[in-house]
Amino acid sequence: MAGVLGVAVIGTGRMGADHVRRLHEVTSGARVAAVADVDAERVKRIADGIEGCSAHTDPAAAMAADGVDAVLIASPGPAHEAALLAAFEHDLPVLCEKPLTPGSASALRVLEAEQRLGHRRVQVGFMRRYDAEYVKLKSLLETGQLGRPLMLHNRHRNVATPPGFTSEMLINDSVVHEMDITRWLLGQEITAVTVLKPTPSGNAPEGLQDPQLVLFETAGGAVVDVEINVNCGFGYQVQAEVVCERGTARIGDGHSLVTNMAGRWGGTIAQDFTERFEDAYDRQMQAWVDATRRGEITGPSAWDGYATAAVCEAGVRAQQEGGRVEVELAKRPPFYA
Amino acid sequence: MAGVLGVAVIGTGRMGADHVRRLHEVTSGARVAAVADVDAERVKRIADGIEGCSAHTDPAAAMAADGVDAVLIASPGPAHEAALLAAFEHDLPVLCEKPLTPGSASALRVLEAEQRLGHRRVQVGFMRRYDAEYVKLKSLLETGQLGRPLMLHNRHRNVATPPGFTSEMLINDSVVHEMDITRWLLGQEITAVTVLKPTPSGNAPEGLQDPQLVLFETAGGAVVDVEINVNCGFGYQVQAEVVCERGTARIGDGHSLVTNMAGRWGGTIAQDFTERFEDAYDRQMQAWVDATRRGEITGPSAWDGYATAAVCEAGVRAQQEGGRVEVELAKRPPFYA
Amino acid sequence: MAGVLGVAVIGTGRMGADHVRRLHEVTSGARVAAVADVDAERVKRIADGIEGCSAHTDPAAAMAADGVDAVLIASPGPAHEAALLAAFEHDLPVLCEKPLTPGSASALRVLEAEQRLGHRRVQVGFMRRYDAEYVKLKSLLETGQLGRPLMLHNRHRNVATPPGFTSEMLINDSVVHEMDITRWLLGQEITAVTVLKPTPSGNAPEGLQDPQLVLFETAGGAVVDVEINVNCGFGYQVQAEVVCERGTARIGDGHSLVTNMAGRWGGTIAQDFTERFEDAYDRQMQAWVDATRRGEITGPSAWDGYATAAVCEAGVRAQQEGGRVEVELAKRPPFYA
Amino acid sequence: MAGVLGVAVIGTGRMGADHVRRLHEVTSGARVAAVADVDAERVKRIADGIEGCSAHTDPAAAMAADGVDAVLIASPGPAHEAALLAAFEHDLPVLCEKPLTPGSASALRVLEAEQRLGHRRVQVGFMRRYDAEYVKLKSLLETGQLGRPLMLHNRHRNVATPPGFTSEMLINDSVVHEMDITRWLLGQEITAVTVLKPTPSGNAPEGLQDPQLVLFETAGGAVVDVEINVNCGFGYQVQAEVVCERGTARIGDGHSLVTNMAGRWGGTIAQDFTERFEDAYDRQMQAWVDATRRGEITGPSAWDGYATAAVCEAGVRAQQEGGRVEVELAKRPPFYA
Repeated sequence: MAGVLGVAVIGTGRMGADHVRRLHEVTSGARVAAVADVDAERVKRIADGIEGCSAHTDPAAAMAADGVDAVLIASPGPAHEAALLAAFEHDLPVLCEKPLTPGSASALRVLEAEQRLGHRRVQVGFMRRYDAEYVKLKSLLETGQLGRPLMLHNRHRNVATPPGFTSEMLINDSVVHEMDITRWLLGQEITAVTVLKPTPSGNAPEGLQDPQLVLFETAGGAVVDVEINVNCGFGYQVQAEVVCERGTARIGDGHSLVTNMAGRWGGTIAQDFTERFEDAYDRQMQAWVDATRRGEITGPSAWDGYATAAVCEAGVRAQQEGGRVEVELAKRPPFYA
Repeated sequence: MAGVLGVAVIGTGRMGADHVRRLHEVTSGARVAAVADVDAERVKRIADGIEGCSAHTDPAAAMAADGVDAVLIASPGPAHEAALLAAFEHDLPVLCEKPLTPGSASALRVLEAEQRLGHRRVQVGFMRRYDAEYVKLKSLLETGQLGRPLMLHNRHRNVATPPGFTSEMLINDSVVHEMDITRWLLGQEITAVTVLKPTPSGNAPEGLQDPQLVLFETAGGAVVDVEINVNCGFGYQVQAEVVCERGTARIGDGHSLVTNMAGRWGGTIAQDFTERFEDAYDRQMQAWVDATRRGEITGPSAWDGYATAAVCEAGVRAQQEGGRVEVELAKRPPFYA
Repeated sequence: MAGVLGVAVIGTGRMGADHVRRLHEVTSGARVAAVADVDAERVKRIADGIEGCSAHTDPAAAMAADGVDAVLIASPGPAHEAALLAAFEHDLPVLCEKPLTPGSASALRVLEAEQRLGHRRVQVGFMRRYDAEYVKLKSLLETGQLGRPLMLHNRHRNVATPPGFTSEMLINDSVVHEMDITRWLLGQEITAVTVLKPTPSGNAPEGLQDPQLVLFETAGGAVVDVEINVNCGFGYQVQAEVVCERGTARIGDGHSLVTNMAGRWGGTIAQDFTERFEDAYDRQMQAWVDATRRGEITGPSAWDGYATAAVCEAGVRAQQEGGRVEVELAKRPPFYA
Repeated sequence: MAGVLGVAVIGTGRMGADHVRRLHEVTSGARVAAVADVDAERVKRIADGIEGCSAHTDPAAAMAADGVDAVLIASPGPAHEAALLAAFEHDLPVLCEKPLTPGSASALRVLEAEQRLGHRRVQVGFMRRYDAEYVKLKSLLETGQLGRPLMLHNRHRNVATPPGFTSEMLINDSVVHEMDITRWLLGQEITAVTVLKPTPSGNAPEGLQDPQLVLFETAGGAVVDVEINVNCGFGYQVQAEVVCERGTARIGDGHSLVTNMAGRWGGTIAQDFTERFEDAYDRQMQAWVDATRRGEITGPSAWDGYATAAVCEAGVRAQQEGGRVEVELAKRPPFYA
């Protein structure tokens, strides 16, 4: 594997700033090498907090900065086409927040430019494909044990919409996720769309037709429905149920993956502690590294190690001799308070 | 925050090798600076795969190596005391795999040495405290809305034991986790232990008394039961249910946290997409960085960006004009096959 | 309340015979007074098994028989209109299996005849309205706490269709239940229907378009979808989820009623043993009465009463004195083997 | 089957009055022939409401009354022994509310009297054996697919105790159910009892040690724990989980029966509409009979039959012709308002 990847982040609004934080504090093997934003003050403030990171107001300048190996585009959609073309000029790999561009005509131009480059450089930020539940669902479909997918039911619910949210955004910003997920899960293009509109909820802002039922037909003859419901009031919920020839599988209702198959509903049980506690091991390590870099100690102490050792000794005696065994514990030093 | 943390990993068996991988590929802000193992060949092979990592057969030499800021002890339990004392000599922060030491007498000696050092240096690897479900359970208890904990029911099930597993290990290696979790969740020391032993399962190896029901009493008057069942055959399960004065809360049965309170059972719903998809964003970034460092493109392509844009256009028309709208899609270039 | 209700059962095929059994063995306060069927032998065999029940091949004759107070129509659909008109002539209350009649024109004639009678006499056998889960769902909607219903999602799955099942029967025999449930739950008429047909499942018999997605619009502006999937292979499932302005409520997935409301998912907990065990009390009584009438004893014996009394005595001592108390039990007499 | 069973009900307090109602309104094939209670006024009022039912203050007189074929004892526990012996004198079958008698010495005397009678006459009212979930759990255990039971975990929770509830009653009135269920599910006698008592809940009345953890050992070497928690505040819950050699099975947490087996958790799906809707059919019939006897019509009307027929016609057209089909519905007559 090559050295640490230097990333230029284009756009430092809500999503961009969050990606900067992620690259800096969460991701292994990457660093933020440059940031660009039209807001010169904001971008400088961000760059100042990161060692070896330069600030720019011009995206192309950020891409040309020292140590930049790759580009992350998180600017507003209308700025994507220009940023993508600039990245192509520097022949840099790109992670581009969705949408690729707003509209299929501009997207086609990007496709053509990338093809002229002669090799693929773009990944689009459809992050649901990295969600553990969707990944499990796709893996199960790929085993073929459920047979061919016939239908896909989706629920997409938000607590409430921000000011200015329109019915078009309901499709372009929200249902777009189910479009990508449908294409990815089923491996088929979408061929037709129908929209049914109930009387709007009393919670929907004036003029917003919410909720809606959006229907897709796919090239392989599957039928897909999406409840898009962005002022549901009670929470954020994303659910999907694939109906196949020999069973169904659903995600998103609290359990990780629930199937109906051969007379039984339910899910799988982990077979190993690494499966169950892998995340806990990762989090423990990150927490220890973070605290240590800050010069702190935050986790279970040597006292905790001692106290469990004393309880183990009582436990083994209780196991071997029967009856109730009292635990003998030294007095806890204030040092470990 | 200081620079990247250089870690010396002591012991490169199963757990140690996994921690090396974790520090190298998953954790942000850390690197493996040195490794030590009695197996000189193994430790050299591991060090060779990591830039700037030195190999040692003596733990103390690893701790003294260039660039070492902290120590991770993953050697067998009987070697922990010496490794901890060596780390104290170098005044290095330590993450020590459980057990701190095998036995309370040696653990007490470590406590005393750390106190002589004058500041805390040791974190013990009770990683369940970093599990998202246990963390939620503890957070809920700390709000006080359930009242004081009265009982704690635990299930700890393994598919099968490895050869050589003894009844003592059932306490020292398995139930030790519930001992730590009990102390941490309730914030109370354990004062007495009782063990009940049903007729062993036919799946238990000859001589192993499995399963057992282990009971703790705590300093605050709570009663805790642990089903330890390490040849259950069907999977790995860790469940906990706290019974409090005004309700109960349980984790580990597939749902993340389920409560009984005020006439209702159930759980909370995420309020925001960041809560629901935070991990997906993190995994997307790590996958993109990893693939890019390997010179590959693995995620959703520009074609996916284009195709969803075309479906969005059909969707908005269907929404505005009613009826069924066909999607117009360019022919897919082999470049994106 | 009046005396025992004498019922004439018209039609003794699968449904009719089951209703005869139900009236005879399950229902309190009713008896089968007459049965009618075109199959003279079958109807005689059924009548012979029931004290005071006469056999007929003419429905009208059965309705005129001694002791008949009411009529249950379970003959094939095309025979319903004549049987209903005959019941009107005798001015008898009728429970008529669905469909009322096959087709809206004949149904309109029945409506007119009932109105000429001057009072209502007909109940149609839409039995889902008596399902405990649907009843709970409707009760919840009627409280108004979820707000106005916006959408209703339905799943209707059968393992496999019998020979001769057609696409029309999919609507007339299967989806008809969701039509009634939609009208009943929402209290609104259905105003339009759309049907989407995926490529049929490989499990569907040649010529049967299965599954389908059926969409209703209602007079109050709600949108309803029904997955009708009658060769799903894995089981019989009927699920419904109502999406309202302030939350959702669903039934049919194992739990009795699960809601999403105000940041929480889940259900209610019984508040009283009568709620939890009402059915057990009813079944205990029926089992005791049935066994006693057969001259048998089948339930928990006096020995069971004695043995629990002895365990209670040990339990109270253990509670009062602490420690482990052995149960003292007399030798079990062979009489109670 | 013999004629309708005439039952003498001894004791018409809360439980007795409820049994009278059940025999009168719910149970098929039985009638209340006599009632006895020390409260002459109450017993007369009850008898007056039931045709052919005589009122008594002496239990033996009720048993000797005309038309009595069997006895139901629902008087206070201390009166059970005398009532049972009186029933034996009349050689009548008895359903006796739990406890058989209060105490094992008196229970032994009843056993001896029944043995002298030469045939069994007594069924004890341990009604949990008739609960659908416990029945499924026992059926599953009897298939042997889970292997031998090793442990049984129970939760028994009440909202709050009535005034005067004592720690002894916790065992004798509450845990007695788990004693019976343990003996019945496992088919083994209980051999020893241990009780652990946490610091009482703040919700427990002064002097009541609540909750408690009660442990049973059985003749076959199983270990059983019972959380008895009768002031839990949030609801009435009865849960049981059997831990066997090859899997576990639990009831009482909302789903009907959930197992862990061979890498999967979950439950079974009904295979047939009769399994799913059997209760709905029974309730529909009882509701129709009850309403008809009152001279009322309460269920779906002929209008409902007509309206669904019209929707079916639109549905079949939509299915055959494609697109959206409007439903043509006659104007609803006020007669069906």
